Amino acid sequence: MTKSTISSLRRLYERELLSSVVPFWERHSMDREQGGYFSCLERDGKVFDGDKFLWMQGRELWCFSRLHRAIRPEPRWLELAAHGASFIRERGRAPDGDYWFALDRTGKPLVQPYNIFSDFFCAAGFAEYGKASGELWARELASSSWRRILERRSNPKGVWTKQISENRPVKAMGMPMMLLWMAEVMQGIAAREELEAIVEEALGQIFSIHVDRGREAVFERVFADGSHPDCMEGRLLNPGHALETLWFAMRAAERKGDWDMIGRAQEAMLWTIERGWDKRHGGIFYYQDYEGLPPEKLESDMKLWWVHVEALCAFLLAYKLTGDPGCEAWFDRIHAWTWSHFPDPEYGEWYGYLDRRGDVAMSLKGGKWKGLFHLPRALMECGSWLAQMEATCPEGSYVAPRAGGRQ
Amino acid sequence: MTKSTISSLRRLYERELLSSVVPFWERHSMDREQGGYFSCLERDGKVFDGDKFLWMQGRELWCFSRLHRAIRPEPRWLELAAHGASFIRERGRAPDGDYWFALDRTGKPLVQPYNIFSDFFCAAGFAEYGKASGELWARELASSSWRRILERRSNPKGVWTKQISENRPVKAMGMPMMLLWMAEVMQGIAAREELEAIVEEALGQIFSIHVDRGREAVFERVFADGSHPDCMEGRLLNPGHALETLWFAMRAAERKGDWDMIGRAQEAMLWTIERGWDKRHGGIFYYQDYEGLPPEKLESDMKLWWVHVEALCAFLLAYKLTGDPGCEAWFDRIHAWTWSHFPDPEYGEWYGYLDRRGDVAMSLKGGKWKGLFHLPRALMECGSWLAQMEATCPEGSYVAPRAGGRQ
Repeated sequence: MTKSTISSLRRLYERELLSSVVPFWERHSMDREQGGYFSCLERDGKVFDGDKFLWMQGRELWCFSRLHRAIRPEPRWLELAAHGASFIRERGRAPDGDYWFALDRTGKPLVQPYNIFSDFFCAAGFAEYGKASGELWARELASSSWRRILERRSNPKGVWTKQISENRPVKAMGMPMMLLWMAEVMQGIAAREELEAIVEEALGQIFSIHVDRGREAVFERVFADGSHPDCMEGRLLNPGHALETLWFAMRAAERKGDWDMIGRAQEAMLWTIERGWDKRHGGIFYYQDYEGLPPEKLESDMKLWWVHVEALCAFLLAYKLTGDPGCEAWFDRIHAWTWSHFPDPEYGEWYGYLDRRGDVAMSLKGGKWKGLFHLPRALMECGSWLAQMEATCPEGSYVAPRAGGRQ
Repeated sequence: MTKSTISSLRRLYERELLSSVVPFWERHSMDREQGGYFSCLERDGKVFDGDKFLWMQGRELWCFSRLHRAIRPEPRWLELAAHGASFIRERGRAPDGDYWFALDRTGKPLVQPYNIFSDFFCAAGFAEYGKASGELWARELASSSWRRILERRSNPKGVWTKQISENRPVKAMGMPMMLLWMAEVMQGIAAREELEAIVEEALGQIFSIHVDRGREAVFERVFADGSHPDCMEGRLLNPGHALETLWFAMRAAERKGDWDMIGRAQEAMLWTIERGWDKRHGGIFYYQDYEGLPPEKLESDMKLWWVHVEALCAFLLAYKLTGDPGCEAWFDRIHAWTWSHFPDPEYGEWYGYLDRRGDVAMSLKGGKWKGLFHLPRALMECGSWLAQMEATCPEGSYVAPRAGGRQ
C-alpha cells in the first residue's frame, strides 16, 4: 500500500466510526425512561423490542468507554457509558452475582444466567468504564466479575448444561478466544502475571489443537489431543470466528515478540479465507463443514457484518506486521466487498445480515445479537493500525517491520 | 376439482410416497451395525453424521408402523419399525424414563432429556408400532411414556429451563398442537375420556388465545388472556406451524361434527396463507413478525419442505370438508410451487431447505431436524383424503359435505 492509500483508508474508517456508526447508537439506543440500552433497532433506528440482553448491554458499555479512552475524552461518551453502567450494576446480576442473559425493558429478569459470555461482556464493560471514568466501584465490579468467570469457566453453563460432555469431551474455541481478548481488557485491573498465564494457556490451546496444520483449517470443536469427532460439530468451521481468534492471537504474539507465532497465525488466516470466501457471490460464509458436507445451521451461507469486519482486522494486522502481499490482497478484496454491501448511506450504521448473494436479508441495525461492538471495535482497531502505518510509511510503499526477511 | 383431477393427484401423492420417499429411507437410513436409524443423509443418501436424535428416531418408528397400518401390511415395514423400536427401547431413555435428546451412533447419550418433544415422538412411535405389531411391551411403553408426558407438560424443560416464566408468562402453541396429534395417535392405548378431555383443552387454548380474530393472525406465543407481549416473541408468526395446528384442529372438529369450529379453522388458514405467502418469489415464509418488524431468526425467509407439506394438508382438508373455492385455489397454488421446487427426481426424496428464491440452500435429504415424518405423513393424509373425495365425487365436480350452504 502507498502512503496515500493508507491515509485515505484511515480517514474512511475514522469517518465511518464517528459520523455514521456511533451517532446512530447515540441517537437511538438510550432508554432514558427505564435505563440501559435498547439494542433492537430497525433500519432507521426505531426500537422494535425493548428487552435488554446482557451481551449487548455489556458490549455497548465497553464501546462508549473505549471510545472515550481510545479516540478522545469526549464527555458525552462517558455519560452514555455511565447511563449503561448504572443500569447493569443495578439490574444485571442475579443474587449469586452472575449476569442474567436477558431482562425485560424495565429490568425484570427473563432468562437465567446460563451464558458465561454475558459475564465476559459485562466484566469487559465495567473494566473499560472503570478505566475511562476512574470510578473505583466499576473497577471492583469488573474484578469480582472476572474472578467469578475464572471459577465458572470449566463448567460455564452450570446447571443449564445439556451436553453430556464425558461422552464427547470436545473443547470449544470460544473460551480461549474470549480469554485472549479479556486479558487485554483486564490489564491494570487483574494481576499481570495472572493475565500472562491466561494468555499462554489460551494461545497453547488455540495453536496446539484448534489450528490444524495437517488439515489446513481452524476447527471450532476438537478433542483435547487435537483429533476430531466425526460428526457435524467436529467438522464445523466458522471463518469469522477463526479470523477473530487469529488476530487476537497475532496481537498477543506481537506483544511477546514471537514472530514464529505471528507467522503461524498468518498462515491459518490464509487457509481460512481461501476456504471461507464465496467464489460465486463474494463475501465470507458464516459456517462451513470441513468436508463440504451439509452444515448444521440453516443460516450457514449468509453473509454477516461481524464476520467481514473481523476479517478486515485480521488481514490488516497481518499485513501491517508482515507486509505479506497475500494478506494485502485479501484485505483489499474483503474491504471492497464489505464496504460495497454492508453500509447504509441513507440512515447510517451497517446492515448485519445479507443473503448469500449479498442482498439485505434483514433490515435491522441492531438486534438480540447485533449491538455496538464488532463494527466500532474493528473501525477503531483498523483506524489505529492505519494511523501507525501512515506514520512510519516512507514516501513509496509501506514496509512492514519484518518485510523482506529482515530480522 | 373434477373427478379426474382428484384421481391424478391421488396417484401422484401415492406414487411419490411409495416410489420415492419411503424407498430412500429404507435404503439409506438403517444402521445395521449399531441399531436405530441414521437421519443425517446427504442428497444421495450418504450418511454424514451418525448421531441419533430421539425426535428423528421416534418419528421414523412412527412412520414405518403407520405405513404398515395405513397403506398395507407390508412385512418389510414392520421389520424396519422393529429395528428402530428395539434400539429406542434399549438406548433411548435416561434412568428416570425420559428420552435423551441425542445419542451418539453407538447409543451413548450426548444431550440430556431437556426436550419433551423427544418423549412425544417416541411415545407416538411406540403407540403406532404397538398397534401395527401387536407387541404388548410397545403399547405399555407408549402408555407409560404418555403418562410421564402428562406429568411433565406444565414444566416441560424441567431443570434445564432458562426462561423465567413468571416475568413473561406466555403460552406456546407447540404444546396444544402436539397434544391434538397425540390424542389421535394414543387412541386405543390411553382412555378415551382422557383423550377427549385433552382434545377439548387443546382446542380451547388454540381458538381462545392463539387464533386472534381481531388481528386476523395465529400467534405462537400469547398471554393466558389472549393479549400479546410487545416484543419479538409476542409478534412471532410461524405460518407452517399455524397451518399444521389448524388442520389438526379441523380434523378434531370434523370428528365432533363441529361445523362452526371447522369454519373458524378455515378462516384462520386463509389469514395465515395470505400473510405468509411470498408475493415476490412464491412459497411460504418460515417465520414472520406480525407488524412486519425484523423477526428474530436469521432463517426466516427460507422455504422449508415441512411448512409447504403441512400447508397442502391444511388446504386440501379444508377444501374436502367445505368445498370453498378459496381453499381450492390456495391448494392449487401451494401444490404447484411445492412440487416444482422440493422433489429431487435424480436421487429421490425431497430437498428440505430452499432459499427465499426457491434455490436449494442445503442439499441434505435428512438431518438433525429432517427425518421420515412430515413429508410421508402429508403424502399419506392427502392420498387418503383424495381417495375419499374420488370415491364420493360425482362425474362433474367435487361437492363437499357442506358445500352450497347445506346444513
